[in-house]
Amino acid sequence: MSIATEDTANWLTAREALAQMARGALSSADLVAACLERIRRRDPVVRAWTYLVPAAAMAKAKAADAAGTGPLRGLPIGIKDIIYTHDMPTSFNSPHFRGHFPNIDAASVAILRDAGAVMMGKNDTVEFAVNGRRAATMNPHDRTRTPGGSSSGSAAAVADGQVPISLGTQTGGSVIRPASYCGTYAIKPTWNLVSHEGFKVCAASFDTLGWYARSAEDLDLIAEVFGIEAQPCPGSLDGARIAICKTLVWHMAEPATVAAMDQARAALEAAGAIVTDLQLPPEFDGLTEAHRVIMQAEMRSAFLADYRRLGDALYPQLVSIMRNAAGDSREDLRAAQNLSARCRCVFDDIAAPFDAVLTPSTSGEAPVGPEDTGAATFNRIWTLLHMPCVNVPGLTGPSQLPVGVTLTGPRYSDRRLISMAALLGPILSAARPKAAKQSSKGTALQ
Amino acid sequence: MSIATEDTANWLTAREALAQMARGALSSADLVAACLERIRRRDPVVRAWTYLVPAAAMAKAKAADAAGTGPLRGLPIGIKDIIYTHDMPTSFNSPHFRGHFPNIDAASVAILRDAGAVMMGKNDTVEFAVNGRRAATMNPHDRTRTPGGSSSGSAAAVADGQVPISLGTQTGGSVIRPASYCGTYAIKPTWNLVSHEGFKVCAASFDTLGWYARSAEDLDLIAEVFGIEAQPCPGSLDGARIAICKTLVWHMAEPATVAAMDQARAALEAAGAIVTDLQLPPEFDGLTEAHRVIMQAEMRSAFLADYRRLGDALYPQLVSIMRNAAGDSREDLRAAQNLSARCRCVFDDIAAPFDAVLTPSTSGEAPVGPEDTGAATFNRIWTLLHMPCVNVPGLTGPSQLPVGVTLTGPRYSDRRLISMAALLGPILSAARPKAAKQSSKGTALQ
Repeated sequence: MSIATEDTANWLTAREALAQMARGALSSADLVAACLERIRRRDPVVRAWTYLVPAAAMAKAKAADAAGTGPLRGLPIGIKDIIYTHDMPTSFNSPHFRGHFPNIDAASVAILRDAGAVMMGKNDTVEFAVNGRRAATMNPHDRTRTPGGSSSGSAAAVADGQVPISLGTQTGGSVIRPASYCGTYAIKPTWNLVSHEGFKVCAASFDTLGWYARSAEDLDLIAEVFGIEAQPCPGSLDGARIAICKTLVWHMAEPATVAAMDQARAALEAAGAIVTDLQLPPEFDGLTEAHRVIMQAEMRSAFLADYRRLGDALYPQLVSIMRNAAGDSREDLRAAQNLSARCRCVFDDIAAPFDAVLTPSTSGEAPVGPEDTGAATFNRIWTLLHMPCVNVPGLTGPSQLPVGVTLTGPRYSDRRLISMAALLGPILSAARPKAAKQSSKGTALQ
Repeated sequence: MSIATEDTANWLTAREALAQMARGALSSADLVAACLERIRRRDPVVRAWTYLVPAAAMAKAKAADAAGTGPLRGLPIGIKDIIYTHDMPTSFNSPHFRGHFPNIDAASVAILRDAGAVMMGKNDTVEFAVNGRRAATMNPHDRTRTPGGSSSGSAAAVADGQVPISLGTQTGGSVIRPASYCGTYAIKPTWNLVSHEGFKVCAASFDTLGWYARSAEDLDLIAEVFGIEAQPCPGSLDGARIAICKTLVWHMAEPATVAAMDQARAALEAAGAIVTDLQLPPEFDGLTEAHRVIMQAEMRSAFLADYRRLGDALYPQLVSIMRNAAGDSREDLRAAQNLSARCRCVFDDIAAPFDAVLTPSTSGEAPVGPEDTGAATFNRIWTLLHMPCVNVPGLTGPSQLPVGVTLTGPRYSDRRLISMAALLGPILSAARPKAAKQSSKGTALQ
């Protein structure tokens, strides 16, 4: 191993690691070795991986060192185990797909490989990224707590220093919720701005590929690789226009989230931001139910092949959706779609005057797991509306566990939101009450 | 071979073939043998298949005869060569994907297999189902003409008696246009009512799986297998409420289509239908451009992995889309999406009073091919709007070539439209001017 020690390499951001590699201070083999060593030590507790062959990961790293090219040359990335990788199985954490091995890469994986990244292994997920079997993963900050679902392993692996970047997916709150609970940066981009070809479909008009990172700048690095256009953004929070949107489910916020939103507001104001309260129009109140109606209708087509093959062997909640136990009609579906379409336009317009809209990421700290993976209460309307969401970590709750906040905005404002997250993140970490400060390195279990 | 002769088995509808198989008058092996023989004789001219191994197809048929189950037991089906089949390659008619062989079934293919169908082979397509390389397929009715694109082989195979059912896909007009030119029934269902998992993505919010058949009843059989709900429908055209929608691109209609719409109207009125002219509101005029803007934006994410790998080796039109040569902005995209969303609600409402809306399928008869595969002029707004479309054959143009008409209606009225097509089809065939009558069996080349 060259200059970087195991410990420093583990906590490097992707940009730092790439910079060290560019100047020859670190090799991909060094970095992957540090990741593998960290995983070896921590996996008995964190359990973030469903598939990882150390020798194969190391071989890819050495190949990158020898002949790799591209902006992510040699950077190890974890992949949620519903996303296809031609060289690793994809089993959806489903007992019905054990050993399932599609021999193609998802579009997102192909793009990352082309950019030189090392596909490290597969991260555990809630079954089919929806419900049913939970990931074995536990929260790196507290082994009794959930890391959140469904991108459980992807979030935990980044939060725990096991890999600098990972891919997840979101249909309700499956990228942002685990980021909030695990204390990482993450983005769920505008719907369909990044190809969702090649992962298990749940609800096609909501499913969105997202990614986890240790900094907003790393989110941006991957956004660039995925071809998302750069955008102008204020260079400072001083004078930035920020809306605070508590949403119509604010009554579900626990004290940890109420405090987090207050602290974020105070920090923004202290930094000179112009903070405004944003009320959502009353018709937005129907969006939570609209999300359920559309998601379940789309699941009935997405899972039909599985249901025909497996029937009641699928988990009971999925079976009841397949049978339309809720009795939703075509009219209900059309009404839900029409409401969503209207609210997309409305939100684009009401969010347009702001540089970002601040809203909760979760109702509070991570619940005790693994059965309870938390709820998508504060995420699903943004997923339904196709709006980009960035989780900004830094704050903690009464149990000293991470509580994220979300920056959202109009469709296609993704990279502006990432830039705003880069400004907000440091002041949130600084704003955290002293008593609550802990290592950002998830050392609770060390 | 048992009772059915080669010739009769070739022209059976799927329902007729299944009924004969159910009573032991025909075996799947008989039917597949008849299909293979027809293909052997006709393929030098029609060229509908990119991959077909007679022995493998026959083995599947014999397996179905021996131990098959399900509503489609033993029925041979052709699959457009952008749709994944675990036992056959999928090469998108792209020189860059020669021998490409994803080892998984598309959701649609898995459902058909589960229902007992025999996956016969792969049907030729325009490259990536968009543009670029044309299918080798020619129109079964005239070897100088295009069968239409992009589902060229799927439509031609059904029209030519080579297979009773085939799958296609539509992003602009790729299911309905070839059906019109080849004279078959076809449906492009409401968007996302049938899973689009497992075929090459072009524009995710438009891509729709569709299917070809020799009768409306066969379209309905497959709709049932795909889990689309049955719906009440008038039992006769007498008193049925039909709207005629010439659309805002009616000036593009050639004399063949003008005549077809007139003949269809006259036939409907003669059958006692209450026929009303339906004007689309002026804002619908923007939908053709909205389709282009959204499609090209979505192609930029869908094809990014290919573009990164292949760059300018991709065909020039695709490269220019990848480079956003049109210079579309995020604002253009949002405006296109908002217009589309509004018009979806509006069309659902204005179409609601009618049992079906009659509209052109194509601007006229099939053009001379193969370079010109026709245009999606009359299809793309319905694809954009997510509305179901059924092509009804029966009429012909001045060159005695088929000219279809489309029945459309609100989202999720799919099976009502199929039922209306079952009523309309026979009277269109009967209405065809005597001079224009020809065998429906595509014997022009025999």
